Amino acid sequence: MSFQGVLVPVLTPFKANLKPDAEKFAALCRAILDQGAGGLAVFGTTSEANSLSAEERMGLLEVLIGSGIPAARLMPGTGACALPEAIRTTGHAVSLGCGGVLLLPPFYYKGVSDDGIYAFVDGLIQGVGSSDLRVYLYHIPPVAQVGYSVDLVGRLHGAHPGTVVGLKDSSGDWSNTAALLAAYPDMEIFPGSEVFLLDALRAGGAGCITATANMNVPMIAASYATWRDDGADDRQAAITRIRETVQGTAPMVPLMKAYLALKTGDPGWATVRPPMVPVTEAVARELDAKLAVLGYQFPGI
Amino acid sequence: MSFQGVLVPVLTPFKANLKPDAEKFAALCRAILDQGAGGLAVFGTTSEANSLSAEERMGLLEVLIGSGIPAARLMPGTGACALPEAIRTTGHAVSLGCGGVLLLPPFYYKGVSDDGIYAFVDGLIQGVGSSDLRVYLYHIPPVAQVGYSVDLVGRLHGAHPGTVVGLKDSSGDWSNTAALLAAYPDMEIFPGSEVFLLDALRAGGAGCITATANMNVPMIAASYATWRDDGADDRQAAITRIRETVQGTAPMVPLMKAYLALKTGDPGWATVRPPMVPVTEAVARELDAKLAVLGYQFPGI
Repeated sequence: MSFQGVLVPVLTPFKANLKPDAEKFAALCRAILDQGAGGLAVFGTTSEANSLSAEERMGLLEVLIGSGIPAARLMPGTGACALPEAIRTTGHAVSLGCGGVLLLPPFYYKGVSDDGIYAFVDGLIQGVGSSDLRVYLYHIPPVAQVGYSVDLVGRLHGAHPGTVVGLKDSSGDWSNTAALLAAYPDMEIFPGSEVFLLDALRAGGAGCITATANMNVPMIAASYATWRDDGADDRQAAITRIRETVQGTAPMVPLMKAYLALKTGDPGWATVRPPMVPVTEAVARELDAKLAVLGYQFPGI
Repeated sequence: MSFQGVLVPVLTPFKANLKPDAEKFAALCRAILDQGAGGLAVFGTTSEANSLSAEERMGLLEVLIGSGIPAARLMPGTGACALPEAIRTTGHAVSLGCGGVLLLPPFYYKGVSDDGIYAFVDGLIQGVGSSDLRVYLYHIPPVAQVGYSVDLVGRLHGAHPGTVVGLKDSSGDWSNTAALLAAYPDMEIFPGSEVFLLDALRAGGAGCITATANMNVPMIAASYATWRDDGADDRQAAITRIRETVQGTAPMVPLMKAYLALKTGDPGWATVRPPMVPVTEAVARELDAKLAVLGYQFPGI
């Protein structure tokens, strides 16, 4: 497997003028890898990737690799509504040696057919035209509304078995993840939350790609590393409680950013781009108090 | 009013290699203006605008204006999920002298607050920084899922009365259009379908912006021009029947493209970009037969 373990859709820090803060971004990426992440799924939903222009995403990717982050550990999001943009950013990621790309389907038009999404992904693969391309399909119907059906995943994998190699399932529906794991055992399937980590690993999953890992790689990575050992269910329960606590407190992206601001003492972390709105320090303190009870420790940046 | 009457979200023709066919696009725009359209809302949902990159849209806009289409009659769609992209394409349209822009809200993240969308539009206006900018809000919740609430429209118009001057309501919900017309009589409000044209005009609306005008400007423009005259309800009923016939036959964008291919004898018109899928000539012939019964005549390109 080219990716395994805990992959992190890294938060994208912004300066006060709302431009991306590349230096702070590289520091977080480095810390997350040092804490045991298996890879960096930068430019995901949690990264506010769709609030970044294609140029900004490509520029940040170059900074990361230039700063010494191994390209093979990077799985940048390169999906877009427009096929030429997806071809451009995907080709750029491949040219930099990225281990894979995480591909949203085109998400503007709703009610599109599997044939239309198939044509998009097929056109992308032909447009990039590189045997180095590894596509991980990004299925997140609660946000994108448009998704990859189990049948469509099989069609794409069957047509491009060496290229369409994996999938992130952020449906939040374990029965969908289980169906994918059963149907395509040679694909690298990642649930989109650590809540399903142990279930996924027991069914042949590759790990998980999860927002909360921005602040909790050590515990999730330990659960991954020891999933066959005694006490695995208890460790899973512990990371599930933390996830549910974060999720239940406020919208996750601004909340985790406010939390990083609180714990690092750098208020700049709290900045989000519209249409997201920031949460207050008081909410971050509320989360901190809840997490303390659960034995959580901030791993630092 | 800077725009009034029938505005057309012009279909975007593609070559066999899926690149936009700028020459054919300019010809259709010219024909639609000659047939009596009040303006061209290019790069709308019907135009497959979100299947075009920002560069492609800007390039096509330059071709249109270079070919002699009056910039003042153009209301290009410049919405995007990423604020920098929306600022770039909106600033470009303003620099070319476009009469307005039609602004989708950022549509990736769902369940965002009015405050977040307000910050996006406000940031756009500040980012463009031109007193020549005229923003028409594009409300199309069936597709974008994210929309402009009646309250948010008032906040934006109140904060920027000379800039946020109008709205296209593609909610398909007449009660929403009626509420907007009643609340903001000094805004230019356009329903997103000719089905609501007469109702909107009687309530102070500015006209309509409608997909079907790609093939039916003459009848809709005549209904607009004579809405205070005897027989207005009959003329409205006739254009409504045509709209409902098109809408009930197949997905409208590929259907109208296939219909243009059939009626012009140029099969290239039928090409769509993924994720849309083309419809067959047989379906276009089926539409043609239905329309003939309704007394419809293709106005040509």
